[in-house]
Amino acid sequence: MRALVWDGAAARVVERPEPACTAGMALVRVVRAGICNTDLELIKGYMDFRGVLGHEFTGTVEDGPAEWRGKRVVGEINFGCGGCTNCRRGLQRHCPTRRVMGIQNADGAFAEYVAVPVANLHAVPESVDDDIAVFTEPLAAAFEILEQIHVQPGTECVVLGDGKLGLLVAQVLFQAGAEVLAVGQHPDKLHIMRARGIATVLAADWNHRPAALVVEATGSAEGLAAAIAATRPRGTLVLKSTVAHPTRLTLAPLVINEITVVGSRCGSFAPALRALETGSIDVRSLIAARRPLQEAADALRLAATPGVLKVLLQP
Amino acid sequence: MRALVWDGAAARVVERPEPACTAGMALVRVVRAGICNTDLELIKGYMDFRGVLGHEFTGTVEDGPAEWRGKRVVGEINFGCGGCTNCRRGLQRHCPTRRVMGIQNADGAFAEYVAVPVANLHAVPESVDDDIAVFTEPLAAAFEILEQIHVQPGTECVVLGDGKLGLLVAQVLFQAGAEVLAVGQHPDKLHIMRARGIATVLAADWNHRPAALVVEATGSAEGLAAAIAATRPRGTLVLKSTVAHPTRLTLAPLVINEITVVGSRCGSFAPALRALETGSIDVRSLIAARRPLQEAADALRLAATPGVLKVLLQP
Repeated sequence: MRALVWDGAAARVVERPEPACTAGMALVRVVRAGICNTDLELIKGYMDFRGVLGHEFTGTVEDGPAEWRGKRVVGEINFGCGGCTNCRRGLQRHCPTRRVMGIQNADGAFAEYVAVPVANLHAVPESVDDDIAVFTEPLAAAFEILEQIHVQPGTECVVLGDGKLGLLVAQVLFQAGAEVLAVGQHPDKLHIMRARGIATVLAADWNHRPAALVVEATGSAEGLAAAIAATRPRGTLVLKSTVAHPTRLTLAPLVINEITVVGSRCGSFAPALRALETGSIDVRSLIAARRPLQEAADALRLAATPGVLKVLLQP
Repeated sequence: MRALVWDGAAARVVERPEPACTAGMALVRVVRAGICNTDLELIKGYMDFRGVLGHEFTGTVEDGPAEWRGKRVVGEINFGCGGCTNCRRGLQRHCPTRRVMGIQNADGAFAEYVAVPVANLHAVPESVDDDIAVFTEPLAAAFEILEQIHVQPGTECVVLGDGKLGLLVAQVLFQAGAEVLAVGQHPDKLHIMRARGIATVLAADWNHRPAALVVEATGSAEGLAAAIAATRPRGTLVLKSTVAHPTRLTLAPLVINEITVVGSRCGSFAPALRALETGSIDVRSLIAARRPLQEAADALRLAATPGVLKVLLQP
């Protein structure tokens, strides 16, 4: 099969054998995959990953348990051991020996086929088309915030960053009842949020008034000091950006203002799939381009261009 | 009166006028004051403070409302405006225009007299002697953790740092039911905790097993990366050290392990006073030395010596 492989020096589409469908696994024929900022970090050295990239996908089960064959699916990307304390309480995402699809010791979905633990599969509702279903994983990462902290309706909230994840986070928090102000760099992206009723402002025009809840989703560690300053005393700052390199930071404001910083990563798929089924979150506006898998290396470069939202791959 | 004044270049005992006892204020004759690490940070430039140092004190009201005159008191150190949103919900500690005794725009207690808002006074129970009462402020900072986060009995907890604050924090969390492991550098200080039934280990011998709750109270920002590594996925890291200078930090582990970092500063006096009255927290073992106010500059140097616990001043 064809697959986009990162070998530590270059990301290239190559021929490699289809993944084996061992016990407990399903072989999924990938129909659509999405490029995430994490993919762009990986090819800068993050996690020291080697192998097939890609962790946002939807596809059809070709091999595995009879009850799953032929089904349209998405799959949670953290493969836990199933037996440790974290796995047993449903937190495979924090299994200490986990593999993570396309990120850590597991081949990913920028390929014709990907192997996924059956336990990680979710059936895609019929009304959710492939372009939409591929957003399940990033939307779950946005919903993760609601799993971690209690967002009271009416909470004043600032979302920093109008990239793919920022656009999803702002919508999820807005839907949860927060008074969201989305701060971004790109009028066209902010327009997507305004169309949903969300208040927006260009970073250059923002009054920096501190809010009770701030989400850092700029994809850059440099904005962190500004994010801390934008969080009111006893407020909460959610960190969504995974940045590999170290940053210089004066921590005294965190202590003086008693700010809570919450690191936030992957989420459960169920609330995301429900939101995609009901259409309560707009993801279609986030699609910037579709490319055949054969052009995946070019597609990565396109996705890395400032201002470009979701680039989809079609094997 | 005599007072220890920091002028930006040196800390010297000088003569200066007694503070005026204006409306809403009480004039307190200081009987005992304690040197805090924050005082040592202030004379390195923290907060850009100038004036009389000192915010841990106990004394007797000499002037002010009749009902307070002659009373033995301690006083909360944050002087809020009384009218803003934070003050109205009891969070004078986070009033945006607050003055802070001996730290920010208000003279402190390393003096014969200090002026304190009447609203900030607490009567000291008769059974609590002066040496003990002076610990109300730092003990309140330890209790602040319980105001900010829910510590379930049985929570696995690591307290990093066996300085003055670490010793108080470990005792408060132990009393709240946490399974505390105190990690320190000094066998004699760790002994104080073992005498209370708290498990201890020298930093060199610590197995670094991650805990659900970690408190960073080393007084240094350098230990932060180790503190993050000692916090288990979805765990909580409480920052107690106020450090003025910037530190280099890789934030990815916070996001990957979804760690919550809680900055923690001053606390309410009521729970601290109650603990001192019942004797449930041992503070007497923390007293390293007593010095007359006249020798306050030397006393600051003594307090800055590694391994020295609480140095008290007697005006």
